Amino acid sequence: MPAESEFTVTPYSVDGNVDYEQLLNQFGADKLTADQRKRFPDPTHPLVRREVFYAERNLDPFLAAANSGDDHALVTGRGPSGPMHIGHIFPFYFARYLQRAAGTTVYIPFSDDEKYLLKDQSIESISDHTRENLRDLLAVGFDPKRTRIVVDSADADVVYPVASALGKEITQATVDATYGDPENVGLSFYPAVQATHLLLPQLVEGRQPTLVPIAVDQDPHVRVCRDVAGKERHDVEKPGALLSKFLPSLDGPGKMSSSDDTPSILLSDDRETIREKIQTHAYSGGQTSVAKHREQGGNPDVDVAYLLLYYFFEKDDQRVQRLAQEYRDGSLLTGELKQLAAATIADFLEGHQQRREQLGPLHTELQPYRLTDEERRQALQTIGYPDDSLARQDSE
Amino acid sequence: MPAESEFTVTPYSVDGNVDYEQLLNQFGADKLTADQRKRFPDPTHPLVRREVFYAERNLDPFLAAANSGDDHALVTGRGPSGPMHIGHIFPFYFARYLQRAAGTTVYIPFSDDEKYLLKDQSIESISDHTRENLRDLLAVGFDPKRTRIVVDSADADVVYPVASALGKEITQATVDATYGDPENVGLSFYPAVQATHLLLPQLVEGRQPTLVPIAVDQDPHVRVCRDVAGKERHDVEKPGALLSKFLPSLDGPGKMSSSDDTPSILLSDDRETIREKIQTHAYSGGQTSVAKHREQGGNPDVDVAYLLLYYFFEKDDQRVQRLAQEYRDGSLLTGELKQLAAATIADFLEGHQQRREQLGPLHTELQPYRLTDEERRQALQTIGYPDDSLARQDSE
Repeated sequence: MPAESEFTVTPYSVDGNVDYEQLLNQFGADKLTADQRKRFPDPTHPLVRREVFYAERNLDPFLAAANSGDDHALVTGRGPSGPMHIGHIFPFYFARYLQRAAGTTVYIPFSDDEKYLLKDQSIESISDHTRENLRDLLAVGFDPKRTRIVVDSADADVVYPVASALGKEITQATVDATYGDPENVGLSFYPAVQATHLLLPQLVEGRQPTLVPIAVDQDPHVRVCRDVAGKERHDVEKPGALLSKFLPSLDGPGKMSSSDDTPSILLSDDRETIREKIQTHAYSGGQTSVAKHREQGGNPDVDVAYLLLYYFFEKDDQRVQRLAQEYRDGSLLTGELKQLAAATIADFLEGHQQRREQLGPLHTELQPYRLTDEERRQALQTIGYPDDSLARQDSE
Repeated sequence: MPAESEFTVTPYSVDGNVDYEQLLNQFGADKLTADQRKRFPDPTHPLVRREVFYAERNLDPFLAAANSGDDHALVTGRGPSGPMHIGHIFPFYFARYLQRAAGTTVYIPFSDDEKYLLKDQSIESISDHTRENLRDLLAVGFDPKRTRIVVDSADADVVYPVASALGKEITQATVDATYGDPENVGLSFYPAVQATHLLLPQLVEGRQPTLVPIAVDQDPHVRVCRDVAGKERHDVEKPGALLSKFLPSLDGPGKMSSSDDTPSILLSDDRETIREKIQTHAYSGGQTSVAKHREQGGNPDVDVAYLLLYYFFEKDDQRVQRLAQEYRDGSLLTGELKQLAAATIADFLEGHQQRREQLGPLHTELQPYRLTDEERRQALQTIGYPDDSLARQDSE
């Protein structure tokens, strides 16, 4: 474990207290500017407005296309190794916001292969999580005309031939330097699959600005893919990145929310469970007694109940500012703030759960979001497989 | 280049003068015994009888099954990076012999992915070779009921999910030690694809002895796969290997026949081209003048025209022995031996070419040899994907 002032961030682990500014220097990304924030579709999403998305890489072409109505795409994926918690769903609701406001094409890759290769879980267990997670994704309410969901194992007919082609452009040395030595040859290859995810919208729908909204620790995936795209062997632009801070877990801000020993609020939790988890586990910025809190006030900046409202769940800026003010001056108690956060989250999740329950059989619901035969052919053709390849002939 | 007495053999290069016995010690394989040779279906194939196949790994269960009528399979593949020459087709005619004599199930993987990753060729070029090579394979005359041809890119829907599962069992360190440091991440992963090829018959048709007839330099692929199978995470036996010496190229015995600067006899060559290539290029064990040859005789053991007849093209043992005798005693001249070899090879290839020309469109001809939907489902299920996975539902 690094010292207080040190930290390490890789796609597979985060250690220490992250200095977000320093990370940008280290990764070579840029801070999101006020001007860039203004060019997001109105009303600007709280994740942008409140600087949870705080940095970027090559964002401007995406914003230009989103504002002019030109083709542009967004990729945000899911690694299905367990049930989804509230931290996992933010990026998808953010993607839905852009899709509804600017007609953004959204691609959602499911890396079930990576999760099997990385975790001590059976294929069956990963497959179970895949199906459950897919239902959560479908409940978000994407437009099937502009959204594609790609499951690596189930869509391997297109994912593998593309990844194999892109894999020729990625050296093992790059992977070792970026991720550390992989545990197995599946993980050695996985960066090529990840590059496939990020370039697939362009391979299917043509060259266009593509944005990858992603927690900052996942930025190396984007960098590897940008290197591949930069070789100009294929007709694609380098995807851009919109980098977020780590969303707070219940036991405190600034830590990874996917840690196994921290209780998380699951998308499936009911109102009472949410209330109990927040009351019992949410790290508080309040004082140790009501009297002391009334006198000295609390610190919303480290209070998880407040941060959850601030980051995502309370859309109203004035209201969220008033809560911070009341918490600081001691008129809002920790218990009250927690109750409010629990109720707001429960309201949100009940809506999500209702949409999820209304879904029919997974296969039927998923079908409109899958790549069509023609789209599969197009991706393979763009990457270089000839028009009359065996794969095409077979599906005729 | 190693000294005379040294040699190195890896799946990607052969250097020096190979000592076949020493190679067995190095690889840990066993010499084929007279008893084992006798247990091949009668009449024993010349490649076995004449000890071109000279060593083995776990051959006995395969022979037992072949003799008792139990299920057993053979895997022999093709890397489609160019037109096929006579050295490439031997293993397939050998497989046909076993299939006809013992009902052997034959799986033929096409590693177009590996060839793209390894060679300086476009995907389109590899795809062109794939289609041409497939026609040659189809001309061999396999029984479609007992034969499956699998093209990595075109059958990625089953190849990648299986390879990804097996890839979890192969460390990058094993690959580095076996093959040397891979040039790119596609090649890092390729041993998992190769293991998929060798285990696919068992994944589709159930646990059974499987034999991989293969030039001895390709043995590391089998060893890596045997390690994976030996972990017993999947219901498969370790595949066995039948190891061959390197078939002679025109410029001399004991060298790799796939070298780019040596002219080879292509499957598409006509009678006159074959004659010209052998007369001009075939390394001769004869003397420098007719008079000297009549007096001192030639050496058939290094004479490529003789070796081609001995290894494969002359089925009649008495005749092949008589040719060696007449060459040694000087009564058979180099020019006569070359003429005879050219005519025998041309007879064989004209039969092959006629069958190839009679083929209809590739897609139509290939279809009966491709994995059925049910077989794909079975392979994925055996490796651990649940019965109601998305891939299955999608194809319903």
